[in-house]
Amino acid sequence: MPKEPDLKAEERKARELVSEFLSLFYQKGWVAGTGGGICASLTKDLFLMAPTGVHKERVAPADLFVVDRKEGLIIRPPKNNALRLSECSTIFCKLINKRGAGSVMHSHALSAVLAADLAGEKDQVVFQGLEMLKGIRGLTNADHHAVPVIRNTAREPELLKEIGEQIDQPHFGKAYCILVRDHGAYIWGADIWETKRHAEVYHFLFEATVARAKGVGHGAPKVNI
Amino acid sequence: MPKEPDLKAEERKARELVSEFLSLFYQKGWVAGTGGGICASLTKDLFLMAPTGVHKERVAPADLFVVDRKEGLIIRPPKNNALRLSECSTIFCKLINKRGAGSVMHSHALSAVLAADLAGEKDQVVFQGLEMLKGIRGLTNADHHAVPVIRNTAREPELLKEIGEQIDQPHFGKAYCILVRDHGAYIWGADIWETKRHAEVYHFLFEATVARAKGVGHGAPKVNI
Amino acid sequence: MPKEPDLKAEERKARELVSEFLSLFYQKGWVAGTGGGICASLTKDLFLMAPTGVHKERVAPADLFVVDRKEGLIIRPPKNNALRLSECSTIFCKLINKRGAGSVMHSHALSAVLAADLAGEKDQVVFQGLEMLKGIRGLTNADHHAVPVIRNTAREPELLKEIGEQIDQPHFGKAYCILVRDHGAYIWGADIWETKRHAEVYHFLFEATVARAKGVGHGAPKVNI
Amino acid sequence: MPKEPDLKAEERKARELVSEFLSLFYQKGWVAGTGGGICASLTKDLFLMAPTGVHKERVAPADLFVVDRKEGLIIRPPKNNALRLSECSTIFCKLINKRGAGSVMHSHALSAVLAADLAGEKDQVVFQGLEMLKGIRGLTNADHHAVPVIRNTAREPELLKEIGEQIDQPHFGKAYCILVRDHGAYIWGADIWETKRHAEVYHFLFEATVARAKGVGHGAPKVNI
Repeated sequence: MPKEPDLKAEERKARELVSEFLSLFYQKGWVAGTGGGICASLTKDLFLMAPTGVHKERVAPADLFVVDRKEGLIIRPPKNNALRLSECSTIFCKLINKRGAGSVMHSHALSAVLAADLAGEKDQVVFQGLEMLKGIRGLTNADHHAVPVIRNTAREPELLKEIGEQIDQPHFGKAYCILVRDHGAYIWGADIWETKRHAEVYHFLFEATVARAKGVGHGAPKVNI
Repeated sequence: MPKEPDLKAEERKARELVSEFLSLFYQKGWVAGTGGGICASLTKDLFLMAPTGVHKERVAPADLFVVDRKEGLIIRPPKNNALRLSECSTIFCKLINKRGAGSVMHSHALSAVLAADLAGEKDQVVFQGLEMLKGIRGLTNADHHAVPVIRNTAREPELLKEIGEQIDQPHFGKAYCILVRDHGAYIWGADIWETKRHAEVYHFLFEATVARAKGVGHGAPKVNI
Repeated sequence: MPKEPDLKAEERKARELVSEFLSLFYQKGWVAGTGGGICASLTKDLFLMAPTGVHKERVAPADLFVVDRKEGLIIRPPKNNALRLSECSTIFCKLINKRGAGSVMHSHALSAVLAADLAGEKDQVVFQGLEMLKGIRGLTNADHHAVPVIRNTAREPELLKEIGEQIDQPHFGKAYCILVRDHGAYIWGADIWETKRHAEVYHFLFEATVARAKGVGHGAPKVNI
Repeated sequence: MPKEPDLKAEERKARELVSEFLSLFYQKGWVAGTGGGICASLTKDLFLMAPTGVHKERVAPADLFVVDRKEGLIIRPPKNNALRLSECSTIFCKLINKRGAGSVMHSHALSAVLAADLAGEKDQVVFQGLEMLKGIRGLTNADHHAVPVIRNTAREPELLKEIGEQIDQPHFGKAYCILVRDHGAYIWGADIWETKRHAEVYHFLFEATVARAKGVGHGAPKVNI
C-alpha cells in the first residue's frame, strides 16, 4: 500500500470542486471584489488554497496552490507564476491545526458585517431560536449558539492572535465560525461539503438575526446578544 | 388494462422534475444548508421522497426513495445506500393522507420564519389584501386566509401531533400551508405543479406581509394578525 | 407587394422572444405563482398572447395564442387545447387600442404592490427625482411622473372600466403604467422591446420610491405622493 | 517592433470581455432599462465604448464603437448603423485623460442612488469601517474614504463640468468613483479588471453604508457623513 496514493483523478476532482464553490460563493455575494477565499484538504497533510487578489469566481482548478497543513508552506504553486497565495493562509492553517478543519471559507458577505455589528461592545453574538442551528454539527435548535466576534486589523495575518485566543475559549467550543467586525467571517467544517453547509447555515443565521434585530415581526424578539 | 401501468418513462420524468424543483428551490433560498425537502406522487399508492441531510440542489433523480403513501415505508431505496430518507416522511404522509396532498414541499425560507414571527402569541397568521391569494386553490383575493402557526420541536417527527390537530381545524380548511415557528413551512398541492405554484404564492404572501408589517407604505396596514 | 407578409420566420422569432421574456420576468420575481402575463404585436392587426394559469417561465413559443387586436378574439389557438387565453386579454386590448401599445406586460411584483400602497387614499403615485425617468418614452429626469393607482377587483376583466377611465385622464397622458392596489401593474410600450425597457424602469421606480419612503438616507425625501 | 500591434485577436477578446461584463452588470441590477454603460481601452490611444439606448445585457462584441481617448471621436463605428455612441463618452474621456482610467463603468444601481441620498446637503459621502475599502487601489481599511457627490443634470454631458471640478479636489484624490444624485455612479480603474473589482467594491460600500444608516445593528454607527 503506497504511502502517497495516486492523487491525479482525486486531485482534479478536488480542484474542480474548490473552483465551483468559489463561483457559487460569488453568486451569493460572499466573495465579491476579489475578496474572500477558501481552502480544502487534498490529503491528510496537504491542502488546496486559493490565490489572493483575483476575481474569485474565475479561479480555475489549475490556479490553486498546494500547501502543507502545518504552516501553509507552498508545496506546489500553480503554473501561472503571477498568482500569490491567499493572505488567509496562516489563519486557515490555525483553524486546520487547532480545530481540525478539513476546509475553511472566508466570507466578505454584507450579512456577516451586519451580524458582527449586532455584538456592540461584546465579543460575541448568540444565535438562537432557529431550526437552522441544526445545520451546524453538534447543535440542536434549542441551543444558544455563541460565535466569537473579533476586531478587524490592518492586515489579515494580524487577525491570527485573536483568532487563536477565541477558538481556545470553552464557550466557543461548538462554533465553526468567527466573525470579524467590519470584515466578514471565517467558517469551517470537517471537509469542503460540511464547510459549504456551514457557510449556508451561518449566512442564514446572520440574515435572520439581522432581520429580527430590525424589529420585523410582532412576537417577542428572539435575539439575545 | 394493467393494474400497474409501466412506470419506467413516467417515473424517470417524475424523478427528474423533483430533482429540478429542488435545484430551483435552492436558487430561491428555500432549501439552503441541506435543509428543506420535497415529495411527489408516483402512482396512486407510491411517492418519491428526497433524502435527508444532503445538499438539496444536488439531489439526482436516482437519489430519491420510493415510499408507500400510508406510512412512508421504503419500497425502493436509492442505489446509494449512504442516503437516508427525509425526516419529514411522517409529516409528508400525514398531509398526503389527511389532506389529499399529491406533493408536499418543506421550506426553510427566511420569509417563512419572519412570517411566523408575525403571529406573536396567536396560533395563526391571516393573509389578506393580495391578488396573489387567487394563486391558492379555492381562494379569492377578498379572502382573509388563515394559516396555522405551530411551535417548533426538537425533532421534525415531533411536529406531527400538532400538525395533525391544526389541519383538522375547520378554519384552516382552505390552507395549503403550515408555518412552523423559527423553522419554515410545509406547503402542498394536488400534484407537484400545484405545490410549486402554492410554494411561490405562499412565499410571496410571506414577503409581502412581512414588508407591510414593517410599515412600508403610507396606506392603512393590510395586515390582520 | 403582398398585403400579408410571410410571417413564418418572423412569427417564430416573435414567439421565441415572448417566451424568453416570460422566463426573464420570472427570474426577476414579476410573474411568480403562474401570475402575470404578456402580449406583443405580430402584425398590425394580430397579437400574440400568453395563456392563463400556467407557470409563465415555462410558456413555450408554441403555447401562445394569436388574437385580433380589437377585441382579443382568438384567431389561432395553440395546439395544446388545455390552454386558455390570458384573463388580461380585454385589458391588453384596451391599452393596445386606446394607447397604441404594441406590447403589454402584467407584473405581480411585490415592489409594484408596495408602490401602490404608497398612494394611500389618492388615486396616483408620483415618481420624481430619478434619472431612470428618462427610460420612459417622452420623460425627462425633472418630470413629476404621475401613474394611476386603481382599486383591485374580484376578477381581472372587471378592472377594465377604471383602467379605461384613468388612461383618458390628461394628467396620466405620459404614463405607460397602471398600478393596481394589492395586485401589481400593467406596463406597456410601442413594441416588446420598449415594454421590456419600461418594465425594468418602472420596477426600478417602484423599488427606489419604496426604499426612500422607508426613510433611507438623510437627505430631504424625494417622494411626493 | 511595429508601432501598432496586430489587434485582431486581442480586439476580439477585449470586445468579448466588455460584452460579458455588461451582461454581468445587468444581472447585478446595475444597468437595467438600457441605462448605464462601459468603456475599456483597446490600445494606448483607442477605447471601446458601448452604444447608448440599447438593452445593455444584449450588446454584442460587434456592437462596440472604437473611439479616440482624447475626445471620444468615433474611429470605427459598429456595422449596425442604427447604433449611436454612449452619451457618457465625454465623461468617460474626462476620466481617462484626467485620472488615467483605462476603463470606466457607469452604474444605475439603486444602492448608488440611496448612497448619494446619504450625503444630504454635503458634496460627499465618506465610507469607512469596512475591510472592503482595501479593494480600492491604494486604500487601507482604516481610511475615511471620501467620494464626491454631484447634482444630476438634464443631460449626461452636462455633468462634465462638475465632474471635472470634483476630480481636481485633492481630498478626492484617492476616489475611483463619483456619485451622481438621483442617478448612479461612475466608477473606474486602470483597466477593465480593476474597474470590475472597483465596481463590486463600491457597490458593496453603498449597500453596507445604506444598511448601517438605516440603524441595523446595536453597535455605534460606523457612518460618518
